[in-house]
Amino acid sequence: MKFTAEQIATLLGGIVEGEGNLEVSRLAKIEQGVPGAISFLANPKYIPYIYETDSSVVLVNKDFIPDKPIKATLIRVEDAYTSFTKLLEMAEGLLANRTGQEDPNFIHPSAEIGENTYIGAFVYIGEQAKIGKGAKIYPFTYIDSGVEIGEDSILKAGVKVLRNCIIGNRCILHAGVVIGSDGFGFAPQKDGQLKKIPQTGIVRLEDEVEIGANTCIDRATLGETLLKQGAKIDNLVQIAHNVEIGQHTAIASQTGISGSTKIGKYCLVGGQVGFVGHLSIADRTQIGGQSGISKNVESEGLILRGSPAQPIREQLRTEALLKQLEAMYARIQELEKKVANLSSQ
Amino acid sequence: MKFTAEQIATLLGGIVEGEGNLEVSRLAKIEQGVPGAISFLANPKYIPYIYETDSSVVLVNKDFIPDKPIKATLIRVEDAYTSFTKLLEMAEGLLANRTGQEDPNFIHPSAEIGENTYIGAFVYIGEQAKIGKGAKIYPFTYIDSGVEIGEDSILKAGVKVLRNCIIGNRCILHAGVVIGSDGFGFAPQKDGQLKKIPQTGIVRLEDEVEIGANTCIDRATLGETLLKQGAKIDNLVQIAHNVEIGQHTAIASQTGISGSTKIGKYCLVGGQVGFVGHLSIADRTQIGGQSGISKNVESEGLILRGSPAQPIREQLRTEALLKQLEAMYARIQELEKKVANLSSQ
Amino acid sequence: MKFTAEQIATLLGGIVEGEGNLEVSRLAKIEQGVPGAISFLANPKYIPYIYETDSSVVLVNKDFIPDKPIKATLIRVEDAYTSFTKLLEMAEGLLANRTGQEDPNFIHPSAEIGENTYIGAFVYIGEQAKIGKGAKIYPFTYIDSGVEIGEDSILKAGVKVLRNCIIGNRCILHAGVVIGSDGFGFAPQKDGQLKKIPQTGIVRLEDEVEIGANTCIDRATLGETLLKQGAKIDNLVQIAHNVEIGQHTAIASQTGISGSTKIGKYCLVGGQVGFVGHLSIADRTQIGGQSGISKNVESEGLILRGSPAQPIREQLRTEALLKQLEAMYARIQELEKKVANLSSQ
Repeated sequence: MKFTAEQIATLLGGIVEGEGNLEVSRLAKIEQGVPGAISFLANPKYIPYIYETDSSVVLVNKDFIPDKPIKATLIRVEDAYTSFTKLLEMAEGLLANRTGQEDPNFIHPSAEIGENTYIGAFVYIGEQAKIGKGAKIYPFTYIDSGVEIGEDSILKAGVKVLRNCIIGNRCILHAGVVIGSDGFGFAPQKDGQLKKIPQTGIVRLEDEVEIGANTCIDRATLGETLLKQGAKIDNLVQIAHNVEIGQHTAIASQTGISGSTKIGKYCLVGGQVGFVGHLSIADRTQIGGQSGISKNVESEGLILRGSPAQPIREQLRTEALLKQLEAMYARIQELEKKVANLSSQ
Repeated sequence: MKFTAEQIATLLGGIVEGEGNLEVSRLAKIEQGVPGAISFLANPKYIPYIYETDSSVVLVNKDFIPDKPIKATLIRVEDAYTSFTKLLEMAEGLLANRTGQEDPNFIHPSAEIGENTYIGAFVYIGEQAKIGKGAKIYPFTYIDSGVEIGEDSILKAGVKVLRNCIIGNRCILHAGVVIGSDGFGFAPQKDGQLKKIPQTGIVRLEDEVEIGANTCIDRATLGETLLKQGAKIDNLVQIAHNVEIGQHTAIASQTGISGSTKIGKYCLVGGQVGFVGHLSIADRTQIGGQSGISKNVESEGLILRGSPAQPIREQLRTEALLKQLEAMYARIQELEKKVANLSSQ
Repeated sequence: MKFTAEQIATLLGGIVEGEGNLEVSRLAKIEQGVPGAISFLANPKYIPYIYETDSSVVLVNKDFIPDKPIKATLIRVEDAYTSFTKLLEMAEGLLANRTGQEDPNFIHPSAEIGENTYIGAFVYIGEQAKIGKGAKIYPFTYIDSGVEIGEDSILKAGVKVLRNCIIGNRCILHAGVVIGSDGFGFAPQKDGQLKKIPQTGIVRLEDEVEIGANTCIDRATLGETLLKQGAKIDNLVQIAHNVEIGQHTAIASQTGISGSTKIGKYCLVGGQVGFVGHLSIADRTQIGGQSGISKNVESEGLILRGSPAQPIREQLRTEALLKQLEAMYARIQELEKKVANLSSQ
């Protein structure tokens, strides 16, 4: 799809400076510009690139004053960064606009498929599953019996949503996500064998939840594993049975949350963090990457780091002192010599 | 599927107190009860909920004495928790009872499919693969040439079992599991390039092994990567080439085991643990989450934690002392002052 | 496929000692030999096995002198290990030799499929995607619109390559890999909600890149996430948006690299390592497993370990001193007593 500089300026409420009928078909960073692309200049650090870029069109702030000639056509806007973000969003919108059904498919006759949905080829929709209107189900997605997918939710290629799990409206599940696998629960028998404890609960995702590629969320033993509205989870995260994640909490890649732990709302959790089970983490907690959380966090808004984690200031002091460990050791030896000398005097 | 309180009481050998013909169709926690659900009361901590629950039926111990009126119908049984677990298992059994074949499928003419199997839609079964009787192969599962799947094993959606790998009887492979990907083996060349070392061994899972969602088990360079009877592996675990896991060992999520390491039987390994390669870990070893194991563990039954790991008592002492580090630093400074004073006297 | 000892000797330029027409159909370790298998003896440690092995044929170095009778047929070659590796490679080559198309498939009419490709059953190839000649696309692979797959590249079962991403020549993507999922980018709003930042860049893999099972590589926000020639990535690794990995760098399992970090060439990164974002790591850096990298690495060839990481020597000293912490604590107490005594004299 191509647009002229003039068309884009109209969309963004900007003013063209240069050739208004120049066409662009892609977005590019100003330092990686190519003919046919549109870029933007917001950060003054990147000003030198505007004189060299091969991009056909560049968005600039309305008060930008060049001090050399510029090859590209400019579009002057109130705020170049915000305008560029709008273009990104429009591009996404155009791309996401798939509808209709592709073949072959397996759709159980009892399944309900809403209007304006996209059902890709190689999609499996089981007994009494419900797909809300406007939802987009990409190829190789497995929607088990009794599952509900909310309106306008997007399930990318190879997502699996298992029996009876519920996905809210406007959720995004990235490729390879597994929702509703069995929790890891075994009862050790007297002979040391591990007997499987049936996992018969579900996973529920409220609205606007986003789940990263190949992340796994286990169903509850009983009841629900629950991700509340607006929670955002990165790739390769493990969320165990009966976990609860609060509204608008973001969790980075490769973090693991053990069974029944409850994380509050507006929390920010770094990558590769581990939580033991049955914890309660207060709202607005921030946790640094690779931390190990083994105790409840009761006060709101703490910043934690380390394994075992402690408040960031204490952790930074511990890390600094660890670098002093050798010096401390030497100072103890020195003291021992001096004290021995003093004692023998 | 619906059951009356009377039918359930008969199944469990219990006695109904209230309406025997009340129907229930789902299981729920007592504190999350809804009409049409059956719950249980075992832990005295939950007694207050029985007077408020919306569940239609509640299993209670036979000697339970309410001190207020209860809305729900009760079923009195010997042990409410055990009875509820039986119901869970029966529910699982009913759900797992799929048989027959769905279309479309790709089954190589030379493949052997046992009786009473379930072969979902979009299943690929390659040349000379064998599927044991009673096995359930869910949609989007890839069974490569020469693979053998044992009797009554369950492969959930999107499992991939690659060339010649062998899965025992009554195994469960959760969604997205990869069995038999290439081991990570490269020979550095003189010019710094990394030349792939062919990985031509297999993965063998003995009976009753369970593998969590999106876990990866690499084939041996030569020979076998081996998981022995009853081993239970959680989600997103990495098991490298030529690893061996002993009987009834359980390994929690996101743990990684490097090449050729052998873990004994009846071990319990926490989440996010890392093992370097070529280790030997004794039977009944227990390892805390996020530990790093870089040495053999020769004595049986040790409990280890930390990275690098040490016996748990020593590790807890180290962790406690780390919190004293600042105080120790201050005490050394204080000592130095005093000793300087003493020396100058 | 079966070969006689004589045929193999001819292939390897070796000399048969024993029955030349003995047939073998598989490779095995000498200590796990079975009839019909060929093994090798290179490491003198394994000499005792040659007198007991059940393998039908064993490759030995030409100067090997047995001191007992050997049941197996021998093939004497210049270097038994190298010859065995050649056999492994030939076996791999034979196995990898699939061509043609299997049904059913979804191939968009505008897609371009090169010659001598293998397109498995249940493959999805989107609009204007290009598959280079000799490429092998296994079942359940999703190739989105605009994607390019280079010549002779292999995509194992269940790989997903999303919109516009580019895979070079002779790459190997193992089962379940996700290329081009959205980067984890959100702009916190005033009310605490997290607004998705569109991710419109791509992922580019140069030639001879290998990616392990279930690894995820996110597309750039803008521009490219780039893996340069010969980079080798293990299973379950997370590579975030706009990351760059240099030529011939190897990264072990479960490592996570945060957004915009650039790793140099010829680096070796252990398993479960975490990198924060926006770092620059010099060429030939080696990083131990479970390390945490939070600062740029500017000098080439450093060996780092620990979280936070430091040069290996310092880290080993820190680890050794941590084991002395209790003794240090006791020595401080002892010193305090002595100094108190001295002061009171």
